[in-house]
Parts: sequence; C-alpha cells; structure tokens
Amino acid sequence: MKVVGLMSGTSADAVDAALVNIVRRGKTPRIIPLAFASLPYPRSLQQRILELSHHGRVDEICHMNAYLGELFAKAALRVIQKADHRPVDIDLIGSHGQTIHHLPKGIRESGIGLVRSTLQIGEPAVIAERTGITTIANFRPRDMAAGGEGAPLVPYVHAIAFGHARRGRLVVNIGGISNVTYLPPGGGVGELRAFDTGPGNMVVDAIVREATNGARTFDAGGRWALRGAVNQRLLTELMDHPFLSQRPPKSTGREEFGASFVRRLLAKQRKARLSMEDLLATCALWTAEAIGSSRRWVSGDIHDVIVGGGGVSNRAIMESLQQVFATTPVSTFDDCGWSSKAFEATAFALLAHDTYYGQCTNVPQVTGARHPVLLGSVVPGRSHSFRKLPQRTG
Amino acid sequence: MKVVGLMSGTSADAVDAALVNIVRRGKTPRIIPLAFASLPYPRSLQQRILELSHHGRVDEICHMNAYLGELFAKAALRVIQKADHRPVDIDLIGSHGQTIHHLPKGIRESGIGLVRSTLQIGEPAVIAERTGITTIANFRPRDMAAGGEGAPLVPYVHAIAFGHARRGRLVVNIGGISNVTYLPPGGGVGELRAFDTGPGNMVVDAIVREATNGARTFDAGGRWALRGAVNQRLLTELMDHPFLSQRPPKSTGREEFGASFVRRLLAKQRKARLSMEDLLATCALWTAEAIGSSRRWVSGDIHDVIVGGGGVSNRAIMESLQQVFATTPVSTFDDCGWSSKAFEATAFALLAHDTYYGQCTNVPQVTGARHPVLLGSVVPGRSHSFRKLPQRTG
Repeated sequence: MKVVGLMSGTSADAVDAALVNIVRRGKTPRIIPLAFASLPYPRSLQQRILELSHHGRVDEICHMNAYLGELFAKAALRVIQKADHRPVDIDLIGSHGQTIHHLPKGIRESGIGLVRSTLQIGEPAVIAERTGITTIANFRPRDMAAGGEGAPLVPYVHAIAFGHARRGRLVVNIGGISNVTYLPPGGGVGELRAFDTGPGNMVVDAIVREATNGARTFDAGGRWALRGAVNQRLLTELMDHPFLSQRPPKSTGREEFGASFVRRLLAKQRKARLSMEDLLATCALWTAEAIGSSRRWVSGDIHDVIVGGGGVSNRAIMESLQQVFATTPVSTFDDCGWSSKAFEATAFALLAHDTYYGQCTNVPQVTGARHPVLLGSVVPGRSHSFRKLPQRTG
Repeated sequence: MKVVGLMSGTSADAVDAALVNIVRRGKTPRIIPLAFASLPYPRSLQQRILELSHHGRVDEICHMNAYLGELFAKAALRVIQKADHRPVDIDLIGSHGQTIHHLPKGIRESGIGLVRSTLQIGEPAVIAERTGITTIANFRPRDMAAGGEGAPLVPYVHAIAFGHARRGRLVVNIGGISNVTYLPPGGGVGELRAFDTGPGNMVVDAIVREATNGARTFDAGGRWALRGAVNQRLLTELMDHPFLSQRPPKSTGREEFGASFVRRLLAKQRKARLSMEDLLATCALWTAEAIGSSRRWVSGDIHDVIVGGGGVSNRAIMESLQQVFATTPVSTFDDCGWSSKAFEATAFALLAHDTYYGQCTNVPQVTGARHPVLLGSVVPGRSHSFRKLPQRTG
C-alpha cells in the first residue's frame, strides 16, 4: 500500500511529505521509503500561523484551515511527482495537519466534566479533492475523547521501526524538546514507555540567536560547543531543574525551557564570565545527561540508543550522549536506514495505514487514554476504491 | 440502516436529533422516521456560540469544538433512548455540527487562487467515542474545495423526500430567510433548482420583538398579522427590494434582511401610521409574494407547493401563500408525513447514509461546484463493523 504522510511541526516552517510503501506481513507492517519532499512556508505565512496559535480569530482560522489544506495538497503532489508516481498510484494520505492549539489538561464544563481539546488545521477535504486520494487526518481528538492527552503519537511508530526481538532500545528524539521511547526486547506496544526528558535544541538555538543578534539561528554541527569546556558548577545547577526529577508520564515545552528560562541562563553566564562556547558545551552535556537520567524510569536493559531529530547533527550533543551511555552504542535513525528528517511525516503515513486496517494506534500508558482507539477521520478520495472500512481489531 | 441525524442551526438554540430507518430500494432510498429529540442549549451557551461566530478566539474555538461534540453525542444518545434502541442498534450518525463561520465567496491567496472556507464545530471524534457509532461530519468543505459555496445541501434531500413521477413540486422552507427547491416531474437531481427567495421569519420576529420590547419573540400562529390589513403602498415598495429581482443562484441573510433593514421598515411604519398588525399582515403577504415570484425562474409546471420551516405555523403567511398560488394546492411537510421540525436533522442522516454508500450528494447547479463530490469525513465507531467504505458511484 503506497501512502503519503504529511506533517508540519510547531515551528511552522514547512510541510514535510514522505511517500512510503507499506507491506503487511504478519502483525508488523514493513515500511519502505520511496521519496521525501519539503514545501517551505513563506516567511510571512509562518508568522501568520504562529500568531494564529496565540490569538487567532474565527475568520482567520476558517480561512487558514482551507488555505493550509491547499499547501498540504501541494506537498503531497510534489512528493508523488518526485517519486515518478501519479496520484492514482497512491492508496492513502495521512495528514497530521498544523496544530494551532492544544489543551491536553482540559477545561471543566458542568454536566460533562473535563473537556480536553486540540485543534489541527489543513482541511483534509481539500487534500482529498486536489489529489483524488483518500485522506486520513485529525489523529489526536479521538485519543483525547478517550481521556488521553492526544500526544505523543509517534512512539507507536518507534516500536514498529526500531523494535527488536532480543535488544532493548532507547529511541531518542532531539527536537526543540527531547523525548525518549523505551522499547523492551521483543516487547509489544503494551510495555513501551515514552516521555519528554527536557532540554533539546530550543535552549541551544536561543543562546546562539542571542549571542549573534539573530544572525545565526543554531550552532551548525555543534562546532561552537565543541570548542568550549563544560562548566561543572553550572551543569550541576542545571541538573537540578525540577522537570528532570519529575516522574513520567510528563511533557514540557516553551513554558519551561523557552525565552524566560534562557534569559535566566544568560544572566548566569554573565555572572560566571563564561564564553558562549563554554555555555553551549555545558548545555550539550546537560541535554545528554537529562536524556541519560531517563534510565531510572525504564525497567529493562538498554542495548542500543538510537537518536533522531534535528539534534543529531549537533556533534557536541552526540558525543556527550556517547559519553553518558558509556559502552552502550549510540547510533542515529539514519544509521538504521530511517531518514531522520522524514521520520515524523513517515509516522503519519503509518498511522493512516493502520487506521485504514482497523488497528488502534494510540498507546494508552503513554497518552493517558482509558483504552486503545482508532485514530483519525477518513475523507474519501475520488478514484480511490476502499476495500474495507476501518474496523477496530487491536 | 438505522441512522441518527444531528443538526444545530445558526440560531444556536438546540441540537436536533432525528433517528430514521433508511431502506435502499432501487435508486431512491426510503426514509422511515423513528424518533426525534431536541437538546436545548443553555441560554449562556447560545450567547457564547453567537459570540464565537463573530470574534471567537483560537483557544475558545479549540475548547468549544470538543464541548459541543459532547452535547451532540448527548443529543444522539437521547434520541436513541427515546426510540427504545441501544447505541449498538444504530449503524451511522450524520452530524452537521454548528457553523461558526462561512466564507463562501472566498479569499484570494497568491499561488493558489480563490480559497473558499467554512467552519463547523462539534468534534465528530467525541461523538464516535461516546456513542461507539461511526460518525460522518464536515459535509460542507468538500463542496467548497470543488468550487461550490458549500450550501445549500438540503435540496438533495427535498428531491428524495418530495420528488414525484408526474407532478412538479415547489418545496418551500420558511426559516429566518425563505428558500425554495423546484422539483420537476420525474426529475432527477440534475434538473433541480434551489435558491433563497428573501424574507422569512427574521423580519416578522424582529418586528414583534421591537413592538413588545422583547416580551414576545414571534407572532404566535400569525394571530396579530391575521387581525391586520395589508397596506398596498408599502407592499409595492417592499416588492421592489433588489434581492427579489436578482437571478438565481442567489442567497441572502442578516446582511440584507436583518436589524438595519427592520429599523428602516419601522421608520416607514411610523411615517405611514400603520399599526403593528397592519405591518405584520403586509410582511406576511410580502413573504408569500416573494416566494411566489420565484416561479419566473422555474422552467416547469408547479402542481404542488409544499411548505416547511418555522413559518408553517404562521397562519397569515400560509393563507397568503394559498392566495398567491391560487388554485395550486399548498400543503405542509407534515401533511406529506414529514415532521417539519425534524426535517433538517433527518436531512443529515440521509446525507451520511448516501456518503456511506458512495453517492455524491452535492447538487452542482445549486452550490456552484464544478462536479459532484462525496461529502463528509468518516470517524469510525467502536463496535461498528463497516461493510464497505465510501466509494464514488454517482
């Protein structure tokens, strides 16, 4: 089954599109990547979307839902063309959409109780109409309706992509925030654990932007950090951050590691007279140590550490990780044959595929849902013939 | 196939739920009503929704989408219980949702062209999770993606409910605004015409609210209008309203017949020293004449006029209609065995049913779409087993 996965993250800089071939054999599907394309948002659009997330009004949300649908459709058509396929060759699209709001803790309403909600835009009816391909979207609301936080959903895909019969594996994703998924040897999804570990690129990027007055937005390859020396006193202080010792399930974001955190960090740097290089080296090791400290909540051996996300290209973080995990081999998604940059888009191709075949894909112990549910809503394509409607089997 | 239809109109006062049995025989499905229930919104909620439609913010929209999903689910469960059924007895839910914005004329975006959009809330994943029943929602966006205005969608259902092999029929709906659907004898959907005719209850209700300082909100049974006399001079003036002579396709709303129109009308009343009763009598005949004048855009005989909507209970309007249509019999939805108050909810049950069976239900010459499309997105239920996924056949 040929499936396109579409994704745009919270940074709202592009629509990523991955085309994969998914082969079902036994219980575990096999995913064969065919092509990847990224459709960058114009800068002004990125700004519009970020503003929409904070104080967007109903008329703008209404319009942007349809407009982003058009861009998601373009990204899908682009990756299909890149793979020398035609839309009629494609069976399914899975589109995450663009999150513009997420209220996982819920708001209480009389007569109902706690109402959890989330809002992804990028109208799937537009995608289905432009491509003629059946499109599954809106993956998060069903998990939240079942009492979950609607996130994270990707750990399920980690299990399919990296699960091993005899090796316990820690899958690490270093995005703005870092998170881990622990896959026990031979383990099914039932024994999987996943949670945020804390600092990721968000902190490093903010330091670089500040130090260069915005001329640079990240430490390319971790070069600056590699030139610095770790300041042990600051590291000890950073390791005391309360989020690191919080028990999972836990998740974090800009509230804890965003602008105001970095402002306090820079004040400490000035006081201790640290160079930017030393500060970046310290943060690289902190990021790695925070990931390493996740071991205390994992009840099984870790034979491999497999790292993805933008942090992979930061050599200072990668070397720190190897130092933290000592003799346990640290490799990357790409080392395992998975494109790191295509992984999230690929994930939504698999989630769509599994919903189509009636497989529940939320992981209740990870999202907090009361039970497994079928994720997503299905918008029929034009020429596409359904063989079978989703029916819960798992 | 047992299907629940859910609807909340622009007045946002209640969720209407209709449970019907739909039997397929040949090309035309037969609809057998089983039960109807209405779940009134609390007054404060109605206010919140109306405000949401005008200047709702992203966080409120995110939350209200899930919250209204809960209320739509409650309405579905209520009508199922009222019919002494259990949720597992029901095959499908069709939910219109609550429209909070509609931009049918579209906004131009560079690189894309005209982007038409609409926003209905009442999360179908919540409905599917609470009821366990497969839920089809979001009917309008696909028609708009195909270049249509996403409305009206009910004329298709008029054709199924009222179409006749040998009689041409004018189906009239008197809501806030009045609209007509012309069904030629033996005609398929291809020859159907539908458009707004202009004034409906919106004008009459506003006059009553004004005259009673809000103590009454409508002319119950049309009793006041029946006590008045038509003022011919004012009627002639009203018949000159430009909307009435505009060629279809056409649609109107509060912009043309809302508060500011009524203010001008009341100024005329004072100037002409008309009683409220005379004004209401004149408006009743005007509503009927405007409906009657639709005949000029209908290219076929009218053997029956069949009236639904709130206006049916206004005897002054109904008598005026009989006067306007002279020897053509004027009857009501209820006379034909269709509950007028349940009709819109029933319509979305049929639209869901037809999407499920791969039948396109938008009427291109009515909405302006380039071609027929399958309407709606499908959220799988829990215990429900799909027999066949939607596949375009029509």
